[in-house]
Amino acid sequence: MTRKQKREFRVAPIGVIRSPFKEPAGTPIQPAYAEGARGEVVLDKAFEPALLDLEQFERVWLVYWFDRAGPFNPPRIVPYRDTREHGLFATRSPCRPNPIGISVVRLIQREGNVLTVADLDILDGTPLLDLKPYIPTFDVYEGSRGGWFDEAAVGLRRADGRFHSS
Amino acid sequence: MTRKQKREFRVAPIGVIRSPFKEPAGTPIQPAYAEGARGEVVLDKAFEPALLDLEQFERVWLVYWFDRAGPFNPPRIVPYRDTREHGLFATRSPCRPNPIGISVVRLIQREGNVLTVADLDILDGTPLLDLKPYIPTFDVYEGSRGGWFDEAAVGLRRADGRFHSS
Repeated sequence: MTRKQKREFRVAPIGVIRSPFKEPAGTPIQPAYAEGARGEVVLDKAFEPALLDLEQFERVWLVYWFDRAGPFNPPRIVPYRDTREHGLFATRSPCRPNPIGISVVRLIQREGNVLTVADLDILDGTPLLDLKPYIPTFDVYEGSRGGWFDEAAVGLRRADGRFHSS
Repeated sequence: MTRKQKREFRVAPIGVIRSPFKEPAGTPIQPAYAEGARGEVVLDKAFEPALLDLEQFERVWLVYWFDRAGPFNPPRIVPYRDTREHGLFATRSPCRPNPIGISVVRLIQREGNVLTVADLDILDGTPLLDLKPYIPTFDVYEGSRGGWFDEAAVGLRRADGRFHSS
């Protein structure tokens, strides 16, 4: 593993996510809890040709950089939806070693390099790293066992800021 | 956008994916077509505490670096499952500006820092960037319209190498 540990890769934003959520507290913790919140995904103009036909899809994956998340530490945290600690990798908390987030949003329309999207759970100004079509054949595993999440008693749907740097 | 375009972030692998697939040609193009192919996800030992309770989940998202993918160019490509060109972002092709892949795999067991997984569609030695639990409440959108994919006539399930550097 030593060789691997020394490797590093660089990512550069391909655009920015514009949303109504200016600060962590009050931001939906997942698209499923976003109650349709709308915003825009503004790609750098140079990438517009690569968007052809994306508008055919009802939903898209946004892959983005949690630029305001706190550091990865400690390795076990109490997630929003539970009262007990779990390993960070057993949660969707943003405080990850590589702070990469994935969210499925609804694609309302595309105008050139600008996508109007709904069900946003992302902070305004978040750097976008990638866009992928949501494809049920690849992405749907209905009934997949959800571990602690299936039994968790906490109904929180909005963030309280605990995972973000001040 | 000018300010954003200049930003850059660094990611470092948190582990490596071990799979039966040593070269692109013949590698399943998605977990759904992997026919159960097994392998291991070996995390750096330092991250073991952050894996607590991940084993409760039936499936996990692997977020990884397409380290052998060709460059992002051209912006429109013919994906494996179609005979027509589409914008790169309307496909799951690996030749992305930020070559980040996401795959849902089945988690068979965890022993310390090593996960045994099934349904692998990933090349042996691929750098792992993140692990997330697959949570149906967040990730399942059954029946979401799949654009060109829903009508595509090509039944290819394994890669032919077209998207990889030689």
